[in-house]
Amino acid sequence: MPELRRDPVTGRWVIISVERARRPSDFVRMPVTGPSHRFCPFCAGNETKTPPEILAFRPDGGHANDSSWSLRVIPNKFPALRVEGNLDRTGEGIYDRMNGVGAHEVIVESRRHEMFLSECSEKEVEDLFWAFRERIRDLKRDSRMKYIVCFKNHGEMGGATLEHTHSQIIGLPIVPQQVQTELEGARRYFEFRERCIFCDMIRQEVEAGSRMVTETDHFVAFSPYAPRFPFETWVMPRSHESHFEDSTPQMIKNLAWVMRTLLRRIDRVLEKPSFNFVIHTAPAHDGALEHFHWHIEVIPRLTKIAGFEWCTGFYINPTPPEEAARYLRDAGIG
Amino acid sequence: MPELRRDPVTGRWVIISVERARRPSDFVRMPVTGPSHRFCPFCAGNETKTPPEILAFRPDGGHANDSSWSLRVIPNKFPALRVEGNLDRTGEGIYDRMNGVGAHEVIVESRRHEMFLSECSEKEVEDLFWAFRERIRDLKRDSRMKYIVCFKNHGEMGGATLEHTHSQIIGLPIVPQQVQTELEGARRYFEFRERCIFCDMIRQEVEAGSRMVTETDHFVAFSPYAPRFPFETWVMPRSHESHFEDSTPQMIKNLAWVMRTLLRRIDRVLEKPSFNFVIHTAPAHDGALEHFHWHIEVIPRLTKIAGFEWCTGFYINPTPPEEAARYLRDAGIG
Repeated sequence: MPELRRDPVTGRWVIISVERARRPSDFVRMPVTGPSHRFCPFCAGNETKTPPEILAFRPDGGHANDSSWSLRVIPNKFPALRVEGNLDRTGEGIYDRMNGVGAHEVIVESRRHEMFLSECSEKEVEDLFWAFRERIRDLKRDSRMKYIVCFKNHGEMGGATLEHTHSQIIGLPIVPQQVQTELEGARRYFEFRERCIFCDMIRQEVEAGSRMVTETDHFVAFSPYAPRFPFETWVMPRSHESHFEDSTPQMIKNLAWVMRTLLRRIDRVLEKPSFNFVIHTAPAHDGALEHFHWHIEVIPRLTKIAGFEWCTGFYINPTPPEEAARYLRDAGIG
Repeated sequence: MPELRRDPVTGRWVIISVERARRPSDFVRMPVTGPSHRFCPFCAGNETKTPPEILAFRPDGGHANDSSWSLRVIPNKFPALRVEGNLDRTGEGIYDRMNGVGAHEVIVESRRHEMFLSECSEKEVEDLFWAFRERIRDLKRDSRMKYIVCFKNHGEMGGATLEHTHSQIIGLPIVPQQVQTELEGARRYFEFRERCIFCDMIRQEVEAGSRMVTETDHFVAFSPYAPRFPFETWVMPRSHESHFEDSTPQMIKNLAWVMRTLLRRIDRVLEKPSFNFVIHTAPAHDGALEHFHWHIEVIPRLTKIAGFEWCTGFYINPTPPEEAARYLRDAGIG
């Protein structure tokens, strides 16, 4: 059973994932990346090599676990967390631990092996966000799931361990520390001003224009004022919503268009870099929040994160967001 | 002038380093790492290729900026922050900024180009910590320097951009967010228990023994209970001290021994990985703190930090600290 442990000073929880336990020699061997012609369990036709599917889209019909899918959600074969059991929170002297109860799922976004998400059709990108929405709505019925993280690691620098395009969903028994910091900061602003800080940010960004990358009826994509990383970009719905999973079908369709064009702009300007994106949404069991506004943070992985940066939470960014936004705006992609 | 910008939601400050400004093509070219026979400004004899030294040790005598040094501290040629000027804190709508005032220095630890710190003599390692101590004591006389970070990035994965062994010192006009979180957590524990949490941690780790790596009269080195990364190791003085720069010569000597043996153990077990270490000390202008206890966090860079992890502050660690400590203890190094 994986274990969750809490750092007594900072309150940060970590997953000690014994199931994926790695000895020193495993790390030494890690730089050897697999060739792309190796067997891939995510490719259409290899359904028996993964755990049974949780959800799949079959636009032309078919049966569960057959190869007629266009998108497929499966449990992670080496999950960081397990769905079974109780949390059993206990102490160990000054330390705290609990069982690694949670969910860890994989969304295979395309039948084709070497497809990038940015090269997928609008419908395929839309299906990905549709799958995120469906899975959050299902997972939050479990009262142990306090927070659900939807994210994508793309490319080797982005931490992807399998080449075939996929995203991940992790259901956590706690609200992670940085999410709490974000919620707290937004709540303090709301108490002070009685306005959502993200709504204010959108107003200011639309007016300034210098950090804007692209806009649609329902979304804005911009370089944030104080980005940690070069070409970091945030995507936010114009209307105030705290929970991503409450998005309407029309919103999801519009979001897919924005994300697809953004990823294509990033590919064009930065020559298909590794990247990550993470949906920042409100905790699963909170009702609609006046002070929090869901959004997606997209980060091309261009620079190595140095010790200084992750130890202090203080980042050095060599590209002003106004310049990054200008490059992305001018990428010549509709 | 570099600029400091504050994220309005989380309160996180970032340095927007226009002096090192990078266009998209700079990142695309980044994977090309320089060959080791390229000209190195840190090698003995090349003193004129760096800014004039701030501090140097010359055990056999000599003159400032000549080539007779054994350790050399110089200003960073491409500093993230600049020593001149005022902070000029201003607002920009909902955002906050200030000038990038601060210090950015480099410590060249050895005259020899391809020396690893772990291969340096005990005296050389001692000199490094001696230099950190001297530079903090000098920098904190400047009231604008609120926090001084001493750290080392080693190897490509660790974010080192020059091969020749060196460490860095950054003097900041703010206390970084993660340092504040640590200080806050330690203060809350002290208010509750009237004891230092780090002193309690040392007591528990010494008693348990399972996470201990090495001990001396003055220091303990152990795998923390909830490590973010495989083989993460913390080095702490046994006696309660909040500020590293108040260490006695005897402490510095003892610390050098512990750090050298730890790095050699890490080299042996993990085949000379990239690593980072950061000194966590109290803010520059605080008096002695009862609740905070300085320490060093050492992190071999074995895994890629994925989007999920730095976006949530929630880490998945595939190696239990008890196992990591056992490997490091058994490395067969005195």
